[in-house]
Amino acid sequence: MFSIFLSEVMGTGMLTLLGCGVVANVILPKTKGFDAGWVLITFGWGLAVFAGVYTAFKTGAHINPAVTLGLAASGGDLFAGNEDLGIAAIPTTFTNVLVYLAGEMVGAFLGAVVVYLAYKRHFDQDAPGAIKLAVFSTGPEVRSYVWNFITEVIGTFVLVFVILMFGPTPSGLGPLAVAFLVVSIGMSLGGPTGYAINPARDLGPRIAHAVLPIRGKGPSDWAYSWVPVLGPIVGGVLAGVVGSAYGGDFL
Amino acid sequence: MFSIFLSEVMGTGMLTLLGCGVVANVILPKTKGFDAGWVLITFGWGLAVFAGVYTAFKTGAHINPAVTLGLAASGGDLFAGNEDLGIAAIPTTFTNVLVYLAGEMVGAFLGAVVVYLAYKRHFDQDAPGAIKLAVFSTGPEVRSYVWNFITEVIGTFVLVFVILMFGPTPSGLGPLAVAFLVVSIGMSLGGPTGYAINPARDLGPRIAHAVLPIRGKGPSDWAYSWVPVLGPIVGGVLAGVVGSAYGGDFL
Amino acid sequence: MFSIFLSEVMGTGMLTLLGCGVVANVILPKTKGFDAGWVLITFGWGLAVFAGVYTAFKTGAHINPAVTLGLAASGGDLFAGNEDLGIAAIPTTFTNVLVYLAGEMVGAFLGAVVVYLAYKRHFDQDAPGAIKLAVFSTGPEVRSYVWNFITEVIGTFVLVFVILMFGPTPSGLGPLAVAFLVVSIGMSLGGPTGYAINPARDLGPRIAHAVLPIRGKGPSDWAYSWVPVLGPIVGGVLAGVVGSAYGGDFL
Amino acid sequence: MFSIFLSEVMGTGMLTLLGCGVVANVILPKTKGFDAGWVLITFGWGLAVFAGVYTAFKTGAHINPAVTLGLAASGGDLFAGNEDLGIAAIPTTFTNVLVYLAGEMVGAFLGAVVVYLAYKRHFDQDAPGAIKLAVFSTGPEVRSYVWNFITEVIGTFVLVFVILMFGPTPSGLGPLAVAFLVVSIGMSLGGPTGYAINPARDLGPRIAHAVLPIRGKGPSDWAYSWVPVLGPIVGGVLAGVVGSAYGGDFL
Repeated sequence: MFSIFLSEVMGTGMLTLLGCGVVANVILPKTKGFDAGWVLITFGWGLAVFAGVYTAFKTGAHINPAVTLGLAASGGDLFAGNEDLGIAAIPTTFTNVLVYLAGEMVGAFLGAVVVYLAYKRHFDQDAPGAIKLAVFSTGPEVRSYVWNFITEVIGTFVLVFVILMFGPTPSGLGPLAVAFLVVSIGMSLGGPTGYAINPARDLGPRIAHAVLPIRGKGPSDWAYSWVPVLGPIVGGVLAGVVGSAYGGDFL
Repeated sequence: MFSIFLSEVMGTGMLTLLGCGVVANVILPKTKGFDAGWVLITFGWGLAVFAGVYTAFKTGAHINPAVTLGLAASGGDLFAGNEDLGIAAIPTTFTNVLVYLAGEMVGAFLGAVVVYLAYKRHFDQDAPGAIKLAVFSTGPEVRSYVWNFITEVIGTFVLVFVILMFGPTPSGLGPLAVAFLVVSIGMSLGGPTGYAINPARDLGPRIAHAVLPIRGKGPSDWAYSWVPVLGPIVGGVLAGVVGSAYGGDFL
Repeated sequence: MFSIFLSEVMGTGMLTLLGCGVVANVILPKTKGFDAGWVLITFGWGLAVFAGVYTAFKTGAHINPAVTLGLAASGGDLFAGNEDLGIAAIPTTFTNVLVYLAGEMVGAFLGAVVVYLAYKRHFDQDAPGAIKLAVFSTGPEVRSYVWNFITEVIGTFVLVFVILMFGPTPSGLGPLAVAFLVVSIGMSLGGPTGYAINPARDLGPRIAHAVLPIRGKGPSDWAYSWVPVLGPIVGGVLAGVVGSAYGGDFL
Repeated sequence: MFSIFLSEVMGTGMLTLLGCGVVANVILPKTKGFDAGWVLITFGWGLAVFAGVYTAFKTGAHINPAVTLGLAASGGDLFAGNEDLGIAAIPTTFTNVLVYLAGEMVGAFLGAVVVYLAYKRHFDQDAPGAIKLAVFSTGPEVRSYVWNFITEVIGTFVLVFVILMFGPTPSGLGPLAVAFLVVSIGMSLGGPTGYAINPARDLGPRIAHAVLPIRGKGPSDWAYSWVPVLGPIVGGVLAGVVGSAYGGDFL
């Protein structure tokens, strides 16, 4: 059980280290990648998933509560296991789900702390508090809790649904497939809210923002914080149910 | 038969959701990806194909009437089937072609509707009607029905011809191969008309534009609408005929 | 023999259609990709190779005289053949080399003609003659025949040398490996001369530029034209000799 | 032993030729890729690794002292060998480590010399000395030896740790996996220091800068030079130790 927890901590930590890192590179002052735009951010986040999935190989690399809950809702195991490595399947039990979720939250928090260390001297520069928060957590361009929520539901639905569809069309891409899928969602559905599509990715770093001694930081925008948590959960569970009905015996 | 229809609905819906989505992200006001340019649009559309192909795995993922008609013209089956999954081949019959086309049109329409929901608050912003239409359908930069038609024929010829050539050179790329091909066509041949290269991708969302209650929308430019329908059909059928003659026994 | 010729015509035609096409998209007036920069051009050319390699599957897809001559210099066959498809090996004979080269030149010319058709209305716009030429052929940013020649030698050496090194490290990438290699060379060594690294890619379209009735076209810069022909030939042959010595029995 | 040396020379030479090359293209005056930004630089460096890994196939392609020392620290062989090619494993001995390091340093130096030749006429242009140095070696945006060091430790930790994690999740990507990993690190953690993450990549070209007759060059910034050497070594060794403990029997 600790092995599950640690695997998801490491994988999700890798995810937010590289994911929040690319945002830091694009929006904090005086970085090499300053103002490099949405192309850099979407590829950067996608490749953060790429590294995170390799890292959490012992648990099928959910690194996202929406994936964990979506798989649980789809009726299958949390992880089918890996015969070649002699790793047993991880069945969908209440305890296992909780362990996954705990690992994801802790990892997401820790990865964001390391981003703070990597970009320390850039966080020390003058910049609006909203910019410094945006390294950690998503925020909408046009605030509207209902529509922002819907956008997160749609984006996460695509994520979990297409991951389920990876099964019947095997390729040699390995973790790159989910990476490109996340690049796609970022490019296409990330425009309104910054595509959390992962409750841990948003909430873990937001907590890190709240507790870290960041110079000149503003509020952590807790009023919005439920949207990138509940939206992805609803989208992921919906995708688990619809996807298993649609994919049926082929999954 | 409903299974064919549903597969193409889901796949083509995923295609226009992510494809029209990336355009919305680049051209609608106040989005994260605003003004991110042609690099984002071409990768975004290519990866939309990537997700769409996984989704329509039960039918060989045409998600494009030009592919359906091109394969029919090439003389082969519409789908060779999948032994591993126990999915039977889908022969080229008049009825099957119609079912594919119907699924593609309905899916393309529905995907565009979901884009409207995902970007609702950005469609509510002030922007020229032509911008709002451009999220849904292609339009030429220099209007010339003859030359725009030729450009669409060339682009779709490349699409269907190279897809036929995938057969003899197997790789582990899976759906990524066609995704990169679409990125290529967008980068190289998308300059004049915005590369519909798919009648459903253009007509389905154009109908969505016509019926959706989009704030401040302008006309749906029906005068141009035949170009991205007929051009791709001609290009696809031509590629089917030329490709099967050129590839011969190797396909 | 005609089969070899046709395969290289089709593959090299696909290469310059998509390769010169992306340049047209970036530099001709009023295109969708206008001013999208070097990222678009390098990915566009790389993916042009991707499509071209699939197309010329019957001949090992040289689509480049520098590759043909480099392979000849390396001492191996021009094409090892393909047992799965029942395609015999193509030995290095004087005649076969000539047939490859002829196919590459004719294909490169024809592909550029189709670019002219695809972008006809954009060639009709006002633009400096040098811009219109740049769609077809490369030109140096700082003219210096000696140093431009050296740059082309280095770039083509990398191309042919690394292609030879693909052998011992098999992957599932297929034609994407050479595509990414060409993206790399464009990004890293394309800055001074625009990386012809392929005599046919430069000379074929230059001839097309000379004979096509392009509105307001200027001279075809024949004074420079030997650099992107001889440089790549020298670089390719050098890579064939050095690569086969270095790779030895492993190739 | 000379075979090990030569393999790492060629691979690391390819790495810095293409890696420093892309920087030259983006920052030297009058290049085609001038000002193309961090997207070009990160993809360019990643694909430089791609080419370098193919080139050094006889030695497992470390092309980086941090990888050599990290693997040594992880307790495994320097190279597991390749049965298909009949290449024997290279055990971790003091001599073998030295040969790897020597090859990496010499190769990195030579690759940078070739970049100078490829971009000779652009180095001849007027530009600040710091720009010309930046083609060769990394430098921090906000100078702070302690924090710059930490950033390099973190970036190299990710590099070596995730490379170790490639083992249990095989894919058909081959050298592209490490290429994308390097793209990721550049995008996400390259903002403060320019991600040396490789002592040879930084020190070899810095020596080249010091000895080459570059027009109008400034100092080689030796005061900073220890950061991109020691930081990556510490990060790589740490990753070797932590990674082998974490990955355990699965590596």
